[in-house]
Amino acid sequence: MFTGLSAFPLTPVTASGVDEKGFTRILARLTAANVDAIGALGSTGSYAYLTRQQRARVAALAVEHADNIPVMVCVGAVSTAEVLHLVDDAQRAGASALLLPPVSYQKLNDDEVFGLFETVSQHASVPVCVYDNPATTHVEFSVELYQRIAALPGVRSIKIPGVPADTDKAHAHIRQLRAALPQRVSLGVSGDAFAGTGLNAGCDLWYSVCGGLFPHTAKAITTAAAQGDGARVTQLSSRLDPLWALYRKHGGSIRVMAAAAGILGLTDHDALPRPLQPLSAAHRREVAEIIEALELS
Amino acid sequence: MFTGLSAFPLTPVTASGVDEKGFTRILARLTAANVDAIGALGSTGSYAYLTRQQRARVAALAVEHADNIPVMVCVGAVSTAEVLHLVDDAQRAGASALLLPPVSYQKLNDDEVFGLFETVSQHASVPVCVYDNPATTHVEFSVELYQRIAALPGVRSIKIPGVPADTDKAHAHIRQLRAALPQRVSLGVSGDAFAGTGLNAGCDLWYSVCGGLFPHTAKAITTAAAQGDGARVTQLSSRLDPLWALYRKHGGSIRVMAAAAGILGLTDHDALPRPLQPLSAAHRREVAEIIEALELS
Repeated sequence: MFTGLSAFPLTPVTASGVDEKGFTRILARLTAANVDAIGALGSTGSYAYLTRQQRARVAALAVEHADNIPVMVCVGAVSTAEVLHLVDDAQRAGASALLLPPVSYQKLNDDEVFGLFETVSQHASVPVCVYDNPATTHVEFSVELYQRIAALPGVRSIKIPGVPADTDKAHAHIRQLRAALPQRVSLGVSGDAFAGTGLNAGCDLWYSVCGGLFPHTAKAITTAAAQGDGARVTQLSSRLDPLWALYRKHGGSIRVMAAAAGILGLTDHDALPRPLQPLSAAHRREVAEIIEALELS
Repeated sequence: MFTGLSAFPLTPVTASGVDEKGFTRILARLTAANVDAIGALGSTGSYAYLTRQQRARVAALAVEHADNIPVMVCVGAVSTAEVLHLVDDAQRAGASALLLPPVSYQKLNDDEVFGLFETVSQHASVPVCVYDNPATTHVEFSVELYQRIAALPGVRSIKIPGVPADTDKAHAHIRQLRAALPQRVSLGVSGDAFAGTGLNAGCDLWYSVCGGLFPHTAKAITTAAAQGDGARVTQLSSRLDPLWALYRKHGGSIRVMAAAAGILGLTDHDALPRPLQPLSAAHRREVAEIIEALELS
């Protein structure tokens, strides 16, 4: 499950709570496209805004509607005690892997980050993926910290927050990580705008927000990467630049993907948990235009 | 309750959960010193690491053991729905005010931060204090955002994250805020190292971590400020520089205060919720030496 396209669906949250029907409609798009894995309750899946009970329910729904595609469930929380409960819940729901971001409130030092991964890897019985996302966790991983954590049994992948935009620097970065890490640890690129460069630089998979709603569009890119067709990877990902520009304009991908899910009729136009607010009608129209212009699917 | 010394106690969390006896021992120090207010479950009170149930229990304990000193309870959470539950819990526990930090996961825009405060101020029946702490919430408040929020009924104070170190600049900053904000909104300085400069610049109170364990030491400073004795404020706060240096050395005040509470025999030597880790024995000795040298009490 740690190669190709790992698709991260939105969890639509409306005024009445999690829109379960909307969520299963989104999952149906992913199973129809036969993505390689589903990343439930990622950042786009709003895990940080949901209660333990809601997260257990969404994890169970994801596995139930995944059509045997492996499901990775994010178990991030500020408190390690809470993370362990979430691990139990996710495993009970049938998760094939766990995604663990070192969510922080007080700034964590490296020993504290390592301690979290050590505790969880000892507790978990399914593989763990390190979720490196400094924009939301405010933890910066060094290569040395990756190494310490990757040596823990059970750690099987690192979801890296992009690669340098320069092709040579991206290659050098991935080479450096490969040299530092055990072979069993796959490297997945995230930050959709970096996907093409990351895959061409040798990442094993794309942890994809775009793929969580537009799996055909995303899978064309990971398929080209699997075929070693770097030029096509670059061409297909570059033509999505207007989508990445929307992400930047709206402070990240989640508000854009929530708007897109509403535009596709999968959930309400307001499907974000407060305090997050939906895009304005004018901005939603821009999203609709780009979905159409880029033929996202 | 929005003048003088608002003391923020540690919530000791040991391997078996919240150390309730330890917490009431810490509260007893604050009531004996007759602090002006108690800030329960602040950042040092580890609110972000506790479950809703634990927070309700700690809030109730704080009010019960406060000896009629008003208690402000922090209701921060990533999700607005959760914040509203915490408001209900805190009010049921007898909180006299609510401290609201705009805790973020996805980066929040100003409308989203404002929306959170608007929703909470409409829901709450006790005064609300804005908790501005970019180091933990990753929200930066502009003066304009302060103004929008301060116009909401129920907002009575802003806990600002320090002042410029330069005396003239600190005065200018507080003057600017006073001019921008309604008179009913008090300004409280936090970041202990800034307390003296902030009080001398005209802050109404000190939201104090140091005062949560060493209330006599802190109260001497707010008393001098109330007497208009700026020179004494500066002298008393400057002599605490070695304590502020320890905060900086250990990535913030919480690890130092947890060590100090253990040294005073109020709780265990390890009283921090994981993933936070206690100071080493060698570092604890340094803390003990500074408590003695500065005669903290």
